[in-house]
Amino acid sequence: MSDDIQDREDAQGRDDVGDRLARVALTWLAEPGTWSVYGLVDEHGAANALDLLLDGGAPDDRLRRAVAARSGAGDPLAVATEAVTRAERLGARLVTPADAEWPVQVAALRRLAGSGATGRRVDTETAPPLCFWVRGGWPLGEVLHRSVAVVGARAATSYGVHVATEFGYGLADRGWTVVSGGAFGVDAAAHRGALNAGGVTVAVLACGVDRPYPVGNHALFDRIAETGLLLSEWIPGAEPLRPRFLTRNRVIAAGTRGSVLVEAAARSGATQTLRRAYAVGRAVMAVPGPVTSAMSVGAHELLREFPEARLVAGVPHVLEEVGRLGVDLAPPPRGPSRPTDGLDDEATAVLESMPRRGVTGPDVIATRAGLDVRTALRKLALLEELRLVARREGGYAIVPPLARRAGADAGQSPSNRIWTS
Amino acid sequence: MSDDIQDREDAQGRDDVGDRLARVALTWLAEPGTWSVYGLVDEHGAANALDLLLDGGAPDDRLRRAVAARSGAGDPLAVATEAVTRAERLGARLVTPADAEWPVQVAALRRLAGSGATGRRVDTETAPPLCFWVRGGWPLGEVLHRSVAVVGARAATSYGVHVATEFGYGLADRGWTVVSGGAFGVDAAAHRGALNAGGVTVAVLACGVDRPYPVGNHALFDRIAETGLLLSEWIPGAEPLRPRFLTRNRVIAAGTRGSVLVEAAARSGATQTLRRAYAVGRAVMAVPGPVTSAMSVGAHELLREFPEARLVAGVPHVLEEVGRLGVDLAPPPRGPSRPTDGLDDEATAVLESMPRRGVTGPDVIATRAGLDVRTALRKLALLEELRLVARREGGYAIVPPLARRAGADAGQSPSNRIWTS
Repeated sequence: MSDDIQDREDAQGRDDVGDRLARVALTWLAEPGTWSVYGLVDEHGAANALDLLLDGGAPDDRLRRAVAARSGAGDPLAVATEAVTRAERLGARLVTPADAEWPVQVAALRRLAGSGATGRRVDTETAPPLCFWVRGGWPLGEVLHRSVAVVGARAATSYGVHVATEFGYGLADRGWTVVSGGAFGVDAAAHRGALNAGGVTVAVLACGVDRPYPVGNHALFDRIAETGLLLSEWIPGAEPLRPRFLTRNRVIAAGTRGSVLVEAAARSGATQTLRRAYAVGRAVMAVPGPVTSAMSVGAHELLREFPEARLVAGVPHVLEEVGRLGVDLAPPPRGPSRPTDGLDDEATAVLESMPRRGVTGPDVIATRAGLDVRTALRKLALLEELRLVARREGGYAIVPPLARRAGADAGQSPSNRIWTS
Repeated sequence: MSDDIQDREDAQGRDDVGDRLARVALTWLAEPGTWSVYGLVDEHGAANALDLLLDGGAPDDRLRRAVAARSGAGDPLAVATEAVTRAERLGARLVTPADAEWPVQVAALRRLAGSGATGRRVDTETAPPLCFWVRGGWPLGEVLHRSVAVVGARAATSYGVHVATEFGYGLADRGWTVVSGGAFGVDAAAHRGALNAGGVTVAVLACGVDRPYPVGNHALFDRIAETGLLLSEWIPGAEPLRPRFLTRNRVIAAGTRGSVLVEAAARSGATQTLRRAYAVGRAVMAVPGPVTSAMSVGAHELLREFPEARLVAGVPHVLEEVGRLGVDLAPPPRGPSRPTDGLDDEATAVLESMPRRGVTGPDVIATRAGLDVRTALRKLALLEELRLVARREGGYAIVPPLARRAGADAGQSPSNRIWTS
């Protein structure tokens, strides 16, 4: 490799690091979702936008005051660097648009710019995210590719909790990622349902991924981080301030193919998520309930006021909606294809018969897949070659996608197929 | 009066009687709702249509066989005459299109002719009615002018019964007539709600008005006949045969401004009423329920499949729908104007403060109306002059519309304003 090329790659590397840290610094200087900040990044790049803001070049007074107040408390780039270090220590990572796992669909939030589409003043806080903090083994973009949000009230009734659990379970069981907040009630129930199905669930937080809120869901967050994802736009250590929940909601709305409202009181924050989902062209769904229940008023309101909102009484109804939209949503240039795309029926059966975690013997796998052991072993060998499963002491285990990618980066591999088409 | 005029009036009277008896005879010969019979009546008049059928001139084999079978069992006109006598004995009356109280809106069923609009083979049984048998003191047309159907399952849950009662009460309380069948469950609950509000409720039967079915609702039917109406297309003594319920449903659908489905299993008979209501341009409404309840599947199905169906969670939602449609539905040439149309606010307050039944003292009326006793007495005198109230031992009572008309026929009176504009 010539020195020239080496220099260029170093410069490129420095630029990448600069962009990443600048994005973090910007979310610390001003709240995520701020349109004026997003506009500067869009036009000048994150590093230049940061310089501009620190030089007092904020395009509006409100932002200028915010930047002045924050930058007095520390050097934004130092804060960002420390945040990255801190995140690494606790097993979290920073994801920016430069990463292959960036969920491109959140760019749909650009449609909300100045549109007043959601009819609330928070329109000023609906700009697309600059970066995400992620805890968990799955690549963010792939996990969100086939995802549905299940949202609703903290003060859910037993009916709401039951329905949210069923929906979470049913969606996960059919291979869909469940996305929700981290609150008690509907959010927690949806996650639990997905976890019970052995599926992937994503909790989108309004605080640092190191201190998920509320603390009462501590054990649940641990399980989600182990088998799904914890996600946030705020740096580790950030507090769950009240307005952040509304800002966070736009990620739930735009990051998924559709949102299901399970229970909500009249004019609740959860219905706001649905209104944003609608504004960015996602499927808007609501589960009805007894008209005698105050916690179903929000869902009924939504169904009455939004002709596009669909009543869903079960998971098949949800799949009808998000399935229909799927084609339009898959972003053609970066749409992930999957390593499983070319598998034959038997190999697919083998793969699907394996639990997401732990080691399983080939005889058990064969029985579950409905194949003889010899065929199962042949297909397991194929899957091993594709880095979809790994041979372990006592049998085979699923290879989580991130591990697949890491392995691929080390050697020659077809695994980039996950990220580029 | 000259002999000439007397002769003409006699001839006219004979024609009227002939038409009325012929209509009854036709509903006995062939089931109400039969399109071929309706077509003959429409073209030749009822008396000629009857002659034609009895001479073997039925336009199709099915009808010809039906006529042959029935006419072997008796002389249709004799049966009709006996039915009228029998009806009079039990306080029922025959209503035909020649009567001022005929509910003109049922003609909307003509739209169903051959349209297949309801997607069922029963389209052959959806022709407009030829006549009605009525038990109860209110003029049919006036009572149905501002009416809403509340329909649903016999096997309603306690939730469905609760909601139907609330809707029946709320509609009646706001001056709307409630219309339903006579079944257990939702039908009975809707009637009870209306009765509890002191309102008018109409039970549309699929059998003779002298033997309302089911017998278990006997006491309820008696209360309805006293303060509302029992209604049927079948002659007294007719049995509640299974297909008659579906035929009957079209009267509920077309006779009201809209239908509310409270609870129904998947693909139930009640949803069929709603589909017909939709086909004749009436408001279609459904009350959601828990998605965990089999008895709410019908309502959710309807809301999902009919974009025009509206979710209603309470009476105000219903009024929003039927109020909106009201203007379009009032048939301009025969639309009833009301004797109350020209009343001032104080007189209206007095009238509205009076219970539908029983005698109330002027001091009580004044208090309820929020007026001093002298003003109340002045307005009561005005209302008495308009035959809207009558002075009785101990106070004043509302004059039921039928009594108003009878009184008017005896002397000079403005009461025709009820029926013609």
